[in-house]
Amino acid sequence: MKYNEIFESAVDALKDEKRYRVFAELERIAGRFPRAIWHNGVDQREITVWCSNDYLGMGQHGHVTDAMRNTVGRMGAGAGGTRNISGTNHPLVALEHELADLHHKEAALVFTSGFVSNEAAISTIARLLPDCLILSDQLNHASMIEGVRRSGAQKKIFRHNDMDYLEALLKEAGSERAKLIVFESVYSMDGDVGPIERICDLADTYGAMTYIDEVHAVGMYGPRGGGIAEREGLMDRIDVIEGTLAKAFGVLGGYITSSEAVVDAVRSYAPGFIFTTALPPGLCAAATASIRHLKASSAEREGQQRQAQRTKDVLKAAGLPVMPSETHIVPVLVADPEKCKRASDLLLEKHDIYIQPINYPTVPRGTERLRITPTPFHDDALIEHLKDSLCAVWDELGLVRETPASAQPTRRKMEIFPAAGG
Amino acid sequence: MKYNEIFESAVDALKDEKRYRVFAELERIAGRFPRAIWHNGVDQREITVWCSNDYLGMGQHGHVTDAMRNTVGRMGAGAGGTRNISGTNHPLVALEHELADLHHKEAALVFTSGFVSNEAAISTIARLLPDCLILSDQLNHASMIEGVRRSGAQKKIFRHNDMDYLEALLKEAGSERAKLIVFESVYSMDGDVGPIERICDLADTYGAMTYIDEVHAVGMYGPRGGGIAEREGLMDRIDVIEGTLAKAFGVLGGYITSSEAVVDAVRSYAPGFIFTTALPPGLCAAATASIRHLKASSAEREGQQRQAQRTKDVLKAAGLPVMPSETHIVPVLVADPEKCKRASDLLLEKHDIYIQPINYPTVPRGTERLRITPTPFHDDALIEHLKDSLCAVWDELGLVRETPASAQPTRRKMEIFPAAGG
Repeated sequence: MKYNEIFESAVDALKDEKRYRVFAELERIAGRFPRAIWHNGVDQREITVWCSNDYLGMGQHGHVTDAMRNTVGRMGAGAGGTRNISGTNHPLVALEHELADLHHKEAALVFTSGFVSNEAAISTIARLLPDCLILSDQLNHASMIEGVRRSGAQKKIFRHNDMDYLEALLKEAGSERAKLIVFESVYSMDGDVGPIERICDLADTYGAMTYIDEVHAVGMYGPRGGGIAEREGLMDRIDVIEGTLAKAFGVLGGYITSSEAVVDAVRSYAPGFIFTTALPPGLCAAATASIRHLKASSAEREGQQRQAQRTKDVLKAAGLPVMPSETHIVPVLVADPEKCKRASDLLLEKHDIYIQPINYPTVPRGTERLRITPTPFHDDALIEHLKDSLCAVWDELGLVRETPASAQPTRRKMEIFPAAGG
Repeated sequence: MKYNEIFESAVDALKDEKRYRVFAELERIAGRFPRAIWHNGVDQREITVWCSNDYLGMGQHGHVTDAMRNTVGRMGAGAGGTRNISGTNHPLVALEHELADLHHKEAALVFTSGFVSNEAAISTIARLLPDCLILSDQLNHASMIEGVRRSGAQKKIFRHNDMDYLEALLKEAGSERAKLIVFESVYSMDGDVGPIERICDLADTYGAMTYIDEVHAVGMYGPRGGGIAEREGLMDRIDVIEGTLAKAFGVLGGYITSSEAVVDAVRSYAPGFIFTTALPPGLCAAATASIRHLKASSAEREGQQRQAQRTKDVLKAAGLPVMPSETHIVPVLVADPEKCKRASDLLLEKHDIYIQPINYPTVPRGTERLRITPTPFHDDALIEHLKDSLCAVWDELGLVRETPASAQPTRRKMEIFPAAGG
């Protein structure tokens, strides 16, 4: 049995399909966001990152880095154990209180990543509900799909944001059956927003639990950064709000907030929570500092919205195919996997701009794109430079410079393994 | 549908079975390991942690905390994205090189936890091998069980460390079929060690791949801290070595090391890797500093072995039921869930000692225990104090002070959800 050849073939298959990923090695420069040093294997060069998920630059905010450094100095680098085995550190407990307060919920639970929080929480909640039916939006993130799958519960996928479809499924299930609706607020590859209020209405009518993923919204929407649900005054109508500490809050980790009962059940039953080392105190203190800052300050949110809108306007005016987006996410359509990769390479090599290509399976074939995430720190001059660079690359690759009518593609998700579904 | 009541009942069931877990809230004190402040809801008190998985105290080592603080100052708190989306930071790449070197492998891949590394790597490897049969030790950790289950591959469980059993299964499968043997070096609840050389021999004979979990061994065994496989000169005979950065190395995260082909395949195909924010540069730099220190210094390893042996000797001499262990782990049998919890509470409340109770389902019913992990920093005086405190608690609870003949229990694992198996 030549095992290594099997793994080599698996990787070669990705190369043949032009979806083999090469990671750019970056060294961010604290205090000079969004600038970073690119290590390209030969030398090092300063570039501008235009695709960071540190959406507000909070990972470099003085309050955040100071909190982290001070706490590491006082308590050390790691937590030293799982939550149960000596790892529950004081800053972690404080962080959970901060998160519960952010979403006006009774309790919160922190995980080492957003992926694990979705996977562990959805699977545990659905397992504990007898004969649970999961109703899952077609475009839910891979981590939610894993949670749904791992729960072992029956699932039905509804067409993206299609409320008639969802209602039909709810009606069909009947009011006596346990039902869990899982969906997102901001869908991160297109930047569109879920119809949260309508979902809450349907959940009330048909007696379903609601679970929302706000990872691309927390910190960035709502008067205190509680997300789209806060902005729309709907937080109290949603049973479980899931979020991340790794994007707008600039650190690492994921979380859920909910009732005491739900949080205690997930805490007590989810293997992916129980058997994992607790988040280190330094990271927790940094996350708490970031959340507190964004509860009180809207300058970052306003700056992000302003610069994201400006980016859309400037790129559109230059005839670049900006895809429709209601949020801070600015997708630009390339619609070809090789050219998408090539565009990314040219931007980095010739224009000192880093935007990674988004190809299948993250988005459907034919909708390959550059996904741009302007932050408050991408100033007008950087936007001009981006526009000029994109135009040069578009010309070099013979890409069309007018927004095609077909620029509103439907979209599927992660299909690396069969039966991902939704 | 009264959802909250369902979750409350689920938690009540754990309380009825005396296996509801309450997390102790701790604040470790850098530079004074193993001392910590215990926040008990009313006031705060200094205690000694006797159950940390920061096995060598490296989480507070000056090289480690300095590396973390300096890197946070230079590069910020978080990574800012997934590995593919701007998150591959320079210290993370350096860490992967360090890990590959530690285990003399071609490549390494870092995950946000040991749990995720096992789950993602085992499931991905077994999925990519056509018609793979997984042979799994009965006492493998919950994260390995999840990886096996998620792979969808056929699995067969062999009795713990039973090589005749394993050989029979290998023979039965035939030489043409892809086979993956997954096992641990140090089994963490009993402290016994797997027969690694014999497993490698069988793998060679029958053409199987080998996957070892060394999370409770890396940093602590072998001349450079490469684990039990390094100590026994077997690293090159094992296909995949999995380890953690969160125990002896004192930080956070998990990893695999293997051939370029295996690492590239897992990197490219595992959703739990692809869709997760990269480990922050500060944590990576801290982990690298820790690994480098332990490659060059054996003082911590020697101190740990010396104090662990001394702890065993002193407790045994006092008639306390120390369970047999070949490693640094010192389990003391209580054999009753309520008394185990009560012993832990008394140690904390009356003796300023923190050792959490280990009850079902982490260990089988009837083998409830206190799991003690002496470090180089638990000096002789602390060991005396531990012995005196344990004796007082044993007397108060009417526990037997001589090692019963039945103190070598067999053991099962994580059975919260049905079909965990192995």
